[in-house]
Amino acid sequence: MKEQWDKIIIGIDPGTNVMGYALLGIKGKQASMIVMGVLKLNPIEDHYMRLHRIFERVTMLIDEFLPDEMAIEAPFFGKNVQSMLKLGRAQGVAMAAALNHEVPIAEYEPRKIKMSITGNGAASKEQVAEMLRRTLHLTDEQMPQLLDATDALAAALCHHYESQRPFGSHAHSSWKDFIAHHPDRVKK
Amino acid sequence: MKEQWDKIIIGIDPGTNVMGYALLGIKGKQASMIVMGVLKLNPIEDHYMRLHRIFERVTMLIDEFLPDEMAIEAPFFGKNVQSMLKLGRAQGVAMAAALNHEVPIAEYEPRKIKMSITGNGAASKEQVAEMLRRTLHLTDEQMPQLLDATDALAAALCHHYESQRPFGSHAHSSWKDFIAHHPDRVKK
Repeated sequence: MKEQWDKIIIGIDPGTNVMGYALLGIKGKQASMIVMGVLKLNPIEDHYMRLHRIFERVTMLIDEFLPDEMAIEAPFFGKNVQSMLKLGRAQGVAMAAALNHEVPIAEYEPRKIKMSITGNGAASKEQVAEMLRRTLHLTDEQMPQLLDATDALAAALCHHYESQRPFGSHAHSSWKDFIAHHPDRVKK
Repeated sequence: MKEQWDKIIIGIDPGTNVMGYALLGIKGKQASMIVMGVLKLNPIEDHYMRLHRIFERVTMLIDEFLPDEMAIEAPFFGKNVQSMLKLGRAQGVAMAAALNHEVPIAEYEPRKIKMSITGNGAASKEQVAEMLRRTLHLTDEQMPQLLDATDALAAALCHHYESQRPFGSHAHSSWKDFIAHHPDRVKK
């Protein structure tokens, strides 16, 4: 599996209710969806058990597909501090699985991903999914019911596009970097 | 090491600049400090590298001391969404290390820990450290320079006290539970 690709990117859309994931294989300039899906966390009552499941699933995917890089969809803003703390924990356990396997992480804001895939930073999830369907030649059977999966795939493809850019990736690889690029986005 | 204790609790005070940690051994009703310290993250520029170090150190401590339970100091409120997202990530990677080793987690608010240790929910870090020094018979050499270490020890001792309570632990083992107990603390 690993040998047929130049690079494999794992895309993750972490959340505390549903986590989307996708594996994107790169061969030359060609990107192909290897697998995508969701981990439903709603049925699990316990907060820590949810975090454990996220860690386990991401670890499993890394063990199986040996991705070279991880792309995470990471909103920089949220409704309130509680939801951001919960989201941070979900991101943290997913990141721990990557860090534990020496997989480098790049994070992208939802708006950036939408812009990268559709050319419109305010595109709907459906529009993103449709563009992915066309770009990656996905069959109807491959299209997921839950758009958290396509969101994860979009993060991976966005990361691929960014890596292709002549002047290097525009991923915000650190908070410092993000803040440096978006001084207006920092709440005083 | 493990055999001489009925139970070992690992206390963690996670942060993105400094992480405090402590191992507390319980023998009967007697609690003793086994080790405590801090992981300084400030010198590390990269955000993910910091998260990786947290995961590694907590994993190392769990491998070495085989704690039965983890107690985390976890503020429920923060200054802003960015700082809460970062804190959530730091908590998430520390929790991932525990979950990966099947160590159950309990979290306590700073105010709850201070109340439990000193009887005053608004006690200073110095007051908490002084009470720990007396309660656990710590020598001057054992007292740390950075109070993140005593904060972690306080979380572990608070968890021990709570576990001793006749009607069971009052730790908030889930968000649902926390919200059920503190409807007034939820921002509408």
